[in-house]
Amino acid sequence: MSTSSHARVLVVGAGLIGTSIALGLKAQGREVFLNDSNPDALRTGLDKSGAIAWTEGSLVDLVVVATPPSSVADVVRKSAHAHPDAVVTDVASVKGAIFAALADEPASVLSRIVGGHPMAGREVSGARAAQSNLFVDRPWVITRTTHTSDAACAAVHDLASDLGAVPIERSIEEHDQAVALISHTPQVLASVLASRLVSAPQSHVDLAGQGIRDTIRIAGSDSALWSDILISNAHEVSEQISQVAASLNAIATALESGDKQAVEDILTLGSQGQKKLPGKHGAQLREDAVVVVRLDDKPGELARLFSAAAKADVNLEDVRIDHSLGRMTGLVELTVADSVAKQLEDSLIAQGFVVIV
Amino acid sequence: MSTSSHARVLVVGAGLIGTSIALGLKAQGREVFLNDSNPDALRTGLDKSGAIAWTEGSLVDLVVVATPPSSVADVVRKSAHAHPDAVVTDVASVKGAIFAALADEPASVLSRIVGGHPMAGREVSGARAAQSNLFVDRPWVITRTTHTSDAACAAVHDLASDLGAVPIERSIEEHDQAVALISHTPQVLASVLASRLVSAPQSHVDLAGQGIRDTIRIAGSDSALWSDILISNAHEVSEQISQVAASLNAIATALESGDKQAVEDILTLGSQGQKKLPGKHGAQLREDAVVVVRLDDKPGELARLFSAAAKADVNLEDVRIDHSLGRMTGLVELTVADSVAKQLEDSLIAQGFVVIV
Repeated sequence: MSTSSHARVLVVGAGLIGTSIALGLKAQGREVFLNDSNPDALRTGLDKSGAIAWTEGSLVDLVVVATPPSSVADVVRKSAHAHPDAVVTDVASVKGAIFAALADEPASVLSRIVGGHPMAGREVSGARAAQSNLFVDRPWVITRTTHTSDAACAAVHDLASDLGAVPIERSIEEHDQAVALISHTPQVLASVLASRLVSAPQSHVDLAGQGIRDTIRIAGSDSALWSDILISNAHEVSEQISQVAASLNAIATALESGDKQAVEDILTLGSQGQKKLPGKHGAQLREDAVVVVRLDDKPGELARLFSAAAKADVNLEDVRIDHSLGRMTGLVELTVADSVAKQLEDSLIAQGFVVIV
Repeated sequence: MSTSSHARVLVVGAGLIGTSIALGLKAQGREVFLNDSNPDALRTGLDKSGAIAWTEGSLVDLVVVATPPSSVADVVRKSAHAHPDAVVTDVASVKGAIFAALADEPASVLSRIVGGHPMAGREVSGARAAQSNLFVDRPWVITRTTHTSDAACAAVHDLASDLGAVPIERSIEEHDQAVALISHTPQVLASVLASRLVSAPQSHVDLAGQGIRDTIRIAGSDSALWSDILISNAHEVSEQISQVAASLNAIATALESGDKQAVEDILTLGSQGQKKLPGKHGAQLREDAVVVVRLDDKPGELARLFSAAAKADVNLEDVRIDHSLGRMTGLVELTVADSVAKQLEDSLIAQGFVVIV
């Protein structure tokens, strides 16, 4: 049972995020109501989450607005008026436009409104894809205005923590600039690059390896939702992608004129930028080694491998099963600290595994 | 012991690829010589691979040229003349410029020259990062001219197969166009996007999630090598990235004018393109489900999990250990066919695992 003083929650919007929140809060013992203007979506969300269908007049302490971005400001406003004692938060990916639309609300309303943005999602959408663990270990950005009360903020901190997320406060402007760079621009780039595969011959696409696969993974996201997100942060995103386009044109010119140094300079800068990403547990990236093992592609083989790795007393940093063109095999990459790679390899070989080192 | 009739091999160039080839061929029982114009690189390559230092006058049946792209044509030519009975191949990422530079060679020389391109690499470079399994299950593109003999081609097929790669024949033009799209353009995009993180505040970068992490992973590659590669395929790459830049500018315009449909159209196209990538074992991508389990971050926990998964008699399609901002936990994502996800979840829960479903 949750110890939160905001134990009765209404989630508005039974999509992936709303239903995942309902599911996670139910698991924490809160009383959760769910609502959606689309009866089919609502039914799926209720089935998936076990939440209670919203009925007019029920009392709640917290409203979480998880509707499409373009309707968020409106639903937040209506919710704040309909529930004059409740804290109202949202989960939209862009904050500036929402708070601009709410600017004329009285201080008594604004004090209860807190912006929220769980940095989590999936390439699939809708209530059916909901997972109560969707937010575990993810940043949940919290934004406030000068009017927002500390108590309202604390309620959203609790919400994020209850769902396993890491609450982080940022200003509205800082949030929108940050997501334009680290979320919205990558989405546009991945989509534009992936779109070029549509007209490419399959014999070209067949040579694709892990590089492009990773680069365009997020191109599989929900187009309607993402166009809504990009439009709500139009100015920041437009600025970022215009600058990317300018850099690409500069590289195209350098390539045509054979200016190797200019090309190398931008690649070097990219390598520096990549190293700025937070590593495991927020620490700096460090030297890891990859040990590759070939397994038969059948149940039990991974168990046998990981039992063997445990016997080697080595901590695995990452695991990846790698599949490739035209072969029916399971290739498993075990990432470990450089200092223990040899120990792991020797131990696995001694235990009969195919590790070609 | 290899059954190849090209059992005595000279590898020229003791970088990541050359040393990995030497290492892998040694493991197959071939007699491998290694050479490099840089004595330090050669010493590291010899130490790592166990190959024999090349001495003038030794007889070889196959020469593999693994020098930086800009010197490949020259080294191939000299090797073909120095070893008049040997097959000569290379591993360069771009083929057109090399064969153009060799066009005036007599047919007796050209008949023994085969283009090769193993589609494998790492974000780290140099002999020290060499792995004999680098090529396992990767495409190894083979290109020939009208002069190339079938016997020479067969020798390079054998080379690729001996290293565990999948040999695939493509025309020179088709290869260079394909890699411009599926390898070189993603590299440029990843580098340009990653370069924008350099001047961004760390508080923005700290919000980065798995999306941008995947999108810019390859930005960590060797800048000098990659600028060389891009310059050798300058025209094809320049054309691709100019078109990407044009698409980005079109989206920037659509964003500024609020044209949501135009933005959505490009995202939808991207989603279609992403689905064209070859899936596991070259098959179409299908519906998978992800089961997330939280583990203590210590040796033995993964073994315990995979033993449990084996007991559930479910085949794991993919495994990923997910780390995030500020939390000392190990979150493991098990990807399985949608049809068996429930079976796995129930079994893991019954065996005492934390699976919040």
